Amino acid sequence: MTTDTLEVISRHRCFGGTQYFYRHESTAIGLPMRFSVFVPQQAEQGRVPVLFYLAGLTCTEETFMIKAGAQRRAAELGLMLVAPDTSPRGAGVPGEDDDWDFGTGAGFYIDATREPWAKHYRMESYVARELFEIATTTLPGDAARAGIFGHSMGGHGALVLAQRHREQYRSVSAFAPIANPMQCPWGHKAFSGYLGDDRNVWAQYDASELMLGSKCPYPEGILIDQGLADTFLENQLHPQAFEAACSQAGQPLTLRRHEGYDHGYYFISTFIDDHLEFHAERLK
Amino acid sequence: MTTDTLEVISRHRCFGGTQYFYRHESTAIGLPMRFSVFVPQQAEQGRVPVLFYLAGLTCTEETFMIKAGAQRRAAELGLMLVAPDTSPRGAGVPGEDDDWDFGTGAGFYIDATREPWAKHYRMESYVARELFEIATTTLPGDAARAGIFGHSMGGHGALVLAQRHREQYRSVSAFAPIANPMQCPWGHKAFSGYLGDDRNVWAQYDASELMLGSKCPYPEGILIDQGLADTFLENQLHPQAFEAACSQAGQPLTLRRHEGYDHGYYFISTFIDDHLEFHAERLK
Repeated sequence: MTTDTLEVISRHRCFGGTQYFYRHESTAIGLPMRFSVFVPQQAEQGRVPVLFYLAGLTCTEETFMIKAGAQRRAAELGLMLVAPDTSPRGAGVPGEDDDWDFGTGAGFYIDATREPWAKHYRMESYVARELFEIATTTLPGDAARAGIFGHSMGGHGALVLAQRHREQYRSVSAFAPIANPMQCPWGHKAFSGYLGDDRNVWAQYDASELMLGSKCPYPEGILIDQGLADTFLENQLHPQAFEAACSQAGQPLTLRRHEGYDHGYYFISTFIDDHLEFHAERLK
Repeated sequence: MTTDTLEVISRHRCFGGTQYFYRHESTAIGLPMRFSVFVPQQAEQGRVPVLFYLAGLTCTEETFMIKAGAQRRAAELGLMLVAPDTSPRGAGVPGEDDDWDFGTGAGFYIDATREPWAKHYRMESYVARELFEIATTTLPGDAARAGIFGHSMGGHGALVLAQRHREQYRSVSAFAPIANPMQCPWGHKAFSGYLGDDRNVWAQYDASELMLGSKCPYPEGILIDQGLADTFLENQLHPQAFEAACSQAGQPLTLRRHEGYDHGYYFISTFIDDHLEFHAERLK
């Protein structure tokens, strides 16, 4: 696969490094895609550890870089940050713009198999193959020191892609992930829409189901933060399912439950430094 | 003046404190206004120092709280942060929505004297009187420990309100302020529109002109950060005019010029901690 030509939409100096927004013709998606990258100053001296962030429903490649306040600590730790958009844009699938939790803005980081979604809705291939390659060849990320994390739908994406591409991601964490999508309305809708009705196929994209079939894929541990005032906690997120699966798989998990915190970026920004430090330690 | 009833639009736990967004019926403006407040945990033990942030053209009460990454250090320092909207909304003045640099989103933190703006466009009274009172009576800010800062149009606002209400603000700083508005297109347009043609009146809202008529109003110093890749630097901002005025007034000024940084919030977030620390030291 050849890496695509990257068009710089904008660049901004930030904490001694550079915040980039890129557009490119994606091979995996078959459409133009956007992503953002924070490159720390340390990249002037050679490749640096790279951390992929997957955002939640309705978000874009801008959300994390604007709202999370991650660049400060990433600059200190010498971490490169990469954030893709959350879905294809302009695929032209009838109805793709009708719902906020399916279609545009809701790619769920899976490769759709069901028509008419299968042609363009290929976010797993995009994130775990194409964008990974761009970040570690064209851009100064080190392929041998890559981690992944995300929020909500992107927390699901991080926990799933980390398990499906274990050789590629050395560390994984999540904020308020959709931890057992087969058992919640968001996951049901996405999986039936993108993958069809076979629940065995769904299980291949469910973090808790994947963990139940594993033996401690991440011996250095997994970190999850969850707010207890999160209005999606009870019906959509189910961190306790992932917790139980980790327990059964012998997977060390730090699941921190935070009184009073909700589902948004004021919650994420509060704990972002802990996640950056968690990854930096494992990507040394 | 009675403080208005505050309606909570949303609240979010953040860094152990709380991020609030409020709506209220403003007496000064004669319309509903919105503002945001970060209340640090320390406010549970009593009133805390309060720092007012004024945002730039086109911004709202959300911009700073979402983009600047200020809450982390403010929480550590025990600083309350208050950010008003940048103008009245829905005043119904003909043409107020036509331009991005005049009217809606461009209140310039002055009290308009020219019709049809004079009725509602009273941002100085709003910020320096009404909002100050709310923040230090209804909310837990300490009136005796208040500072002000801002960005671009809001940097102008901070430098001007600090000088016009010296008894009220104990510390002042700015990011890329419009430092000499009488001499730039943005200021020209705003002042002629809101104040009419008398340049003696304009001078009362020009940070550099006010400083020329002063004698070291802030002996503990003023801090300004300016990016050198800021596309507005040459034609609109004129920090060198304020620098010269401070020199003449015997006003200590730290004006830091940063290679490669632009006008946006990636610049602001890089230096926000320095400003918070600058104010915290002076508001002890």
